[in-house]
Amino acid sequence: MSSPLEDVSVGMEEEDQRPLNRALLHRSATTNASQVAMVGSNPCPIESLDYDYWTAFWVFAGCNLALLLLASSITAFLSPAAGGSGIPEVKAYLNGVDAPNIFSLRTLAVKVVGNIAAVSSSLHVGKAGPMVHTGACIAAIFGQGGSRKYGLTCRWLRYFKNDRDRRDLVTIGAGAGVAAAFRAPVGGVLFALESLSSWWRSALIWRSFFTTAVVAVVLRLFIELCGTGRCGMFGRGGLIMYDVSTVFDDLMTYHLKDIPTVILIGVTGALLGGLYNFLMIKVLRLYNAINERGGAHKLLLAATVSIVTSCCVFGLPWLAPCRPCPTTGPLSSPDGTCHALNRFRRFHCPKGHYNDLASLFLNINDDAIRNLYSTGTNDVYHPVSMVIFFVASYALGVLSYGVVAPSGLFVPIILTGATYGRLVAMLLGGRSGLDHGLVAILGSASFLGGTLRMTVSVCVIILELTNNLLLLPLVMLVLLISKTVADSFNSSIYDLILRLKGLPHLDGHAEPYMRQLAVGDVVAGPLRSFGGVEKVGNVVHTLRTTGHHAFPVVDEPPFSPAPVLYGLVLRAHLLVLLKKREFLVAPERCPKEYVAERFQAEDFDKRGSGKQDTIADVVLSPEEMEMYVDLHPFTNTSPYTVVETMSLAKALVLFREVGLRHLLVVPKACDRSPVVGILTRHDFMPEHILELHPVLLRSRWKRLRWQRGAMAKYFRSLIVWVANSG
Amino acid sequence: MSSPLEDVSVGMEEEDQRPLNRALLHRSATTNASQVAMVGSNPCPIESLDYDYWTAFWVFAGCNLALLLLASSITAFLSPAAGGSGIPEVKAYLNGVDAPNIFSLRTLAVKVVGNIAAVSSSLHVGKAGPMVHTGACIAAIFGQGGSRKYGLTCRWLRYFKNDRDRRDLVTIGAGAGVAAAFRAPVGGVLFALESLSSWWRSALIWRSFFTTAVVAVVLRLFIELCGTGRCGMFGRGGLIMYDVSTVFDDLMTYHLKDIPTVILIGVTGALLGGLYNFLMIKVLRLYNAINERGGAHKLLLAATVSIVTSCCVFGLPWLAPCRPCPTTGPLSSPDGTCHALNRFRRFHCPKGHYNDLASLFLNINDDAIRNLYSTGTNDVYHPVSMVIFFVASYALGVLSYGVVAPSGLFVPIILTGATYGRLVAMLLGGRSGLDHGLVAILGSASFLGGTLRMTVSVCVIILELTNNLLLLPLVMLVLLISKTVADSFNSSIYDLILRLKGLPHLDGHAEPYMRQLAVGDVVAGPLRSFGGVEKVGNVVHTLRTTGHHAFPVVDEPPFSPAPVLYGLVLRAHLLVLLKKREFLVAPERCPKEYVAERFQAEDFDKRGSGKQDTIADVVLSPEEMEMYVDLHPFTNTSPYTVVETMSLAKALVLFREVGLRHLLVVPKACDRSPVVGILTRHDFMPEHILELHPVLLRSRWKRLRWQRGAMAKYFRSLIVWVANSG
Repeated sequence: MSSPLEDVSVGMEEEDQRPLNRALLHRSATTNASQVAMVGSNPCPIESLDYDYWTAFWVFAGCNLALLLLASSITAFLSPAAGGSGIPEVKAYLNGVDAPNIFSLRTLAVKVVGNIAAVSSSLHVGKAGPMVHTGACIAAIFGQGGSRKYGLTCRWLRYFKNDRDRRDLVTIGAGAGVAAAFRAPVGGVLFALESLSSWWRSALIWRSFFTTAVVAVVLRLFIELCGTGRCGMFGRGGLIMYDVSTVFDDLMTYHLKDIPTVILIGVTGALLGGLYNFLMIKVLRLYNAINERGGAHKLLLAATVSIVTSCCVFGLPWLAPCRPCPTTGPLSSPDGTCHALNRFRRFHCPKGHYNDLASLFLNINDDAIRNLYSTGTNDVYHPVSMVIFFVASYALGVLSYGVVAPSGLFVPIILTGATYGRLVAMLLGGRSGLDHGLVAILGSASFLGGTLRMTVSVCVIILELTNNLLLLPLVMLVLLISKTVADSFNSSIYDLILRLKGLPHLDGHAEPYMRQLAVGDVVAGPLRSFGGVEKVGNVVHTLRTTGHHAFPVVDEPPFSPAPVLYGLVLRAHLLVLLKKREFLVAPERCPKEYVAERFQAEDFDKRGSGKQDTIADVVLSPEEMEMYVDLHPFTNTSPYTVVETMSLAKALVLFREVGLRHLLVVPKACDRSPVVGILTRHDFMPEHILELHPVLLRSRWKRLRWQRGAMAKYFRSLIVWVANSG
Repeated sequence: MSSPLEDVSVGMEEEDQRPLNRALLHRSATTNASQVAMVGSNPCPIESLDYDYWTAFWVFAGCNLALLLLASSITAFLSPAAGGSGIPEVKAYLNGVDAPNIFSLRTLAVKVVGNIAAVSSSLHVGKAGPMVHTGACIAAIFGQGGSRKYGLTCRWLRYFKNDRDRRDLVTIGAGAGVAAAFRAPVGGVLFALESLSSWWRSALIWRSFFTTAVVAVVLRLFIELCGTGRCGMFGRGGLIMYDVSTVFDDLMTYHLKDIPTVILIGVTGALLGGLYNFLMIKVLRLYNAINERGGAHKLLLAATVSIVTSCCVFGLPWLAPCRPCPTTGPLSSPDGTCHALNRFRRFHCPKGHYNDLASLFLNINDDAIRNLYSTGTNDVYHPVSMVIFFVASYALGVLSYGVVAPSGLFVPIILTGATYGRLVAMLLGGRSGLDHGLVAILGSASFLGGTLRMTVSVCVIILELTNNLLLLPLVMLVLLISKTVADSFNSSIYDLILRLKGLPHLDGHAEPYMRQLAVGDVVAGPLRSFGGVEKVGNVVHTLRTTGHHAFPVVDEPPFSPAPVLYGLVLRAHLLVLLKKREFLVAPERCPKEYVAERFQAEDFDKRGSGKQDTIADVVLSPEEMEMYVDLHPFTNTSPYTVVETMSLAKALVLFREVGLRHLLVVPKACDRSPVVGILTRHDFMPEHILELHPVLLRSRWKRLRWQRGAMAKYFRSLIVWVANSG
């Protein structure tokens, strides 16, 4: 195992024969990064085994550990919101959940640097999710008018300072992130619309399209400018990342008799995907329990995972025997060695031999996927190696995501799926006439469908990744089978993570028990409201003692003959009023000119994510507390209302479809207060409703028990129980 | 011009050398149909000019006339709803407009037969729109539980008998139609969602995806089964209709310096597209005026258009000179003649020569498009021929659509755009390095963007039509430029046709003047309501004397202490009650068991499109008219309501986003009737509002005048004026 080996050259492209330098064997940090991430670098990716393996391993593991600790520390101490992939947070934001700090400039910086470091550290994570978050960050910073704190602001951006434009910008920013990650512009649009966005509009579609078109054009531009190798590794590769349209195109055919194979792949992909989601959530709960104990624990966990990963990556290839390089056929080289291609890693083998497991582990994810997708390579890998790689990839994928660092899920899932696809093809052997590369693509598709549960966007992304339109029917079929089967077990991984994080994502469809409830059954009191002209002290007291973001304004005599609901006023606007300190001595309504002189529309712009006004910033004198403020000009006089006897399911449809934050509840009879309650997102969440009406929970469990089969029911009840007890 | 010519063979494929029979020159009816339309036919497409041209012309024109008159007569007399493309009707249906008879079995039959006949008659129309309507018909027939009239019904289809499922089925049926027309499954999903559907849901996306996946799989299946020519022309061609990935792939490159060309193509495509829409609407108005006079006029118009088309198609090629067949290069044949390829039509030329204009006119649209898209054919066509063909194609496209027959817009627009693209490339000459076939694709894309204003779906359809992923950035760029520029002139052709037909399509965005109005300003009276227990005679009288589809139910004493709004009852349900004749002698509420014994849920299922209950079917005796009916169990107790002071714009958002048909208006103060009005779609239409408040119209014109530039404003005001005066 320690025979002296000569220099071997490992080039990035088949024709890349650079002069060699002597250096250590290492999974070079430069080649781990995506090809477009390194500007101007000229790597010398070589392996030389002058030193023994242990030293090589320590250097390897040491570099990985250092990089991951860098990623973890900046995430843990600078911006915890940058951890994970960011897609659940973006999805929640687009549903109306303003989680703090997810789009700040600091988060952006930590996300970019941290993800580069995390991926470079051989951790089994991807970059697609963090790129989505990065794109969304950039868009959100535009939407809030730049960053005043860092002096990057621009006047014309003020037109975007409203809820809807800001969410539109985040949607298209996320789409641009996917388009950039996969060089798939149409896939980016569809991903943003299918998986992230809660509301669609025609205008949003073509705006996303425009953004991803610009991404595609800029990519193409850079490819042309950097074509001659001027930019180092930046700009390498074409527009199609895993281009499988090679001279072996005729191997990409399929026939009617292959349909059962496709169905098999779809079903097993669904089972594996459902299990992946289940295990991922269990592991994330465990990691959360560890991470909650403090920064040191976070770093320790990251270090542990890094070491385990390094051991697997470096150690598992020892289990594979050395195999001779192919001497005939298109993969052979004239000199009998195959080491010029990065498909064949020599690792510890003698000259003219390669280690197939090392060829999978000691390659960057993109290259490994490209190798697995390639046609005409049925004999390159051994089934036992594939099993080992699959299990390791699956396990590392589940274990690595929860580390406190920016990490993505997509590419590891694609890689794991490709491995499992090839494995299925090998196990079927002659029974299936499909090329193993084709089955690898189908395996990726089915595993993506089984974990992420996306259909159209994954299909188009795979189409744009592989440039194989003829494969489309098979890919669609396998995606649908895997999604349908897996949906009977649990939800998609992003939805599960959303629920784990406690983000109150509101679905569009009403739960069955909501039809049995009226709005009045879930309204939680007491209701805090203001008069049309209110004493400042009351306003301050209410703002200090509650966390509500909106209050009904009720006009009482003498401003109106009988108590009547005037409208709804927002906390943010009340804070602006209080800060302006334009109070009235006596309780009376102020004329329009009074307001026009003292206030401007921009005073009430939606604040950026970093700068929220709070009641603690408001300091008033006792005299001012006794003065009055006229709320009439600042109240929304057309709030959406529902009658208290309205079905809760229908109120949810209204709340969700119109995209409300507050919904006023008015009484049915006229002899009571003109407003009896106010509904917010939390009033519609299952946890709140079932807490108020636990009898529904028991009937829901009963219903679950006899509606589903044993296995599926078990999984689902388990998730519900875990979610409720967590 | 009348030299005796020998037999020439014109095969459908390059290798198709069938033995010749002597026959007349004719644009053979079989080859006009799409390749998948003819099952089992074995055509002999040959040209032989034993007879002189006049006889040939008369036969040609005669066949065209006969086919078009067939199409027109069945459309005019059997099912007028089958005329045109059907896409505006489907779009309106999905917006909530139940136009009569658009989805009946008769319409389906007329649409299929009529479209085949119309396309076969050399009319410059396509098949994509009718296929969308066909797919939607089939889906709608499933949704209404089959057709009882013709005995095609199935019990499990009753689950689809509700509004939302029916509209979902129509959406996915339409998507399947596009997928089948272009062999573009993903494009079908996106077309249905971007252009047709008014409301999106994740579930709808993957259901559309599943449907188009099945389309793709079935297509692929038939291609395999029919591969060896067993099915005649059915199943010919591969999955990709205009596959341009030939051996000339290296000609499909583009560079940074081509961006100005692309922008030019986009802008001119927008101008041409906007003009096309404008002219189309003018012509449609004229045709409507003619067609309204009766069936004979419809047939006469169809005959006129057919003769004009025949003259153009047969006559215009005489303007082009004969050019020698290419003798070198990949397009040449060993024997020096190029007539084996249908790219080169001989027409009247001597042996070894071809007529390029005949090669465009006397080919089916699909072949012409394929020829125009092909690379490496820069010298095949002459600029003058292209100009003639472009003008003829443009003019015929505008003139042919309005004929009373099932006709589509898509493929003529693609063909016209491809011509204009090639023309631009020829005129630019050496200044642009782009291959003319590539520019033809961009021309099609820009013209589609300029007329139809679709972005993502057209992009994906073009991608799936041409299988060229590398072209994607250019196609996206050109689509966006053309859409953006053209949007400043007028709306998409489908929206203009919608407005022309008077279908009350409700957009999602509120007009600016709606913000100045309250709901109470547009409510039209008088309000017809029922008591909780109502006399049968009152119900019958109200149903007979109004056309409303829903009525509020107000509980008065003794059923409630004070008048209170109980809910909303639908006309359809009232008719069910009246037909059941389960009346009460005295005005009292009936217990639940009473209702459960006599009524079932299926009694209230949504009726199919053919069988609507009407009040005329209800015949009651005078004694029954004096009896009472308890409306409480049949009333929707959770209707959506708005306060009368609510902003009209916000009420529109509610109405549109939730997808309502009726919106109850309740008073602000408690001392009036508990319901003051009911809003329907028509109350939100600009025509109704501006009729009630003409002062807004003048300010809207004023606003229009100084907001837009001169030309754009002229077009827009013209359309508004024409629309208002039409």
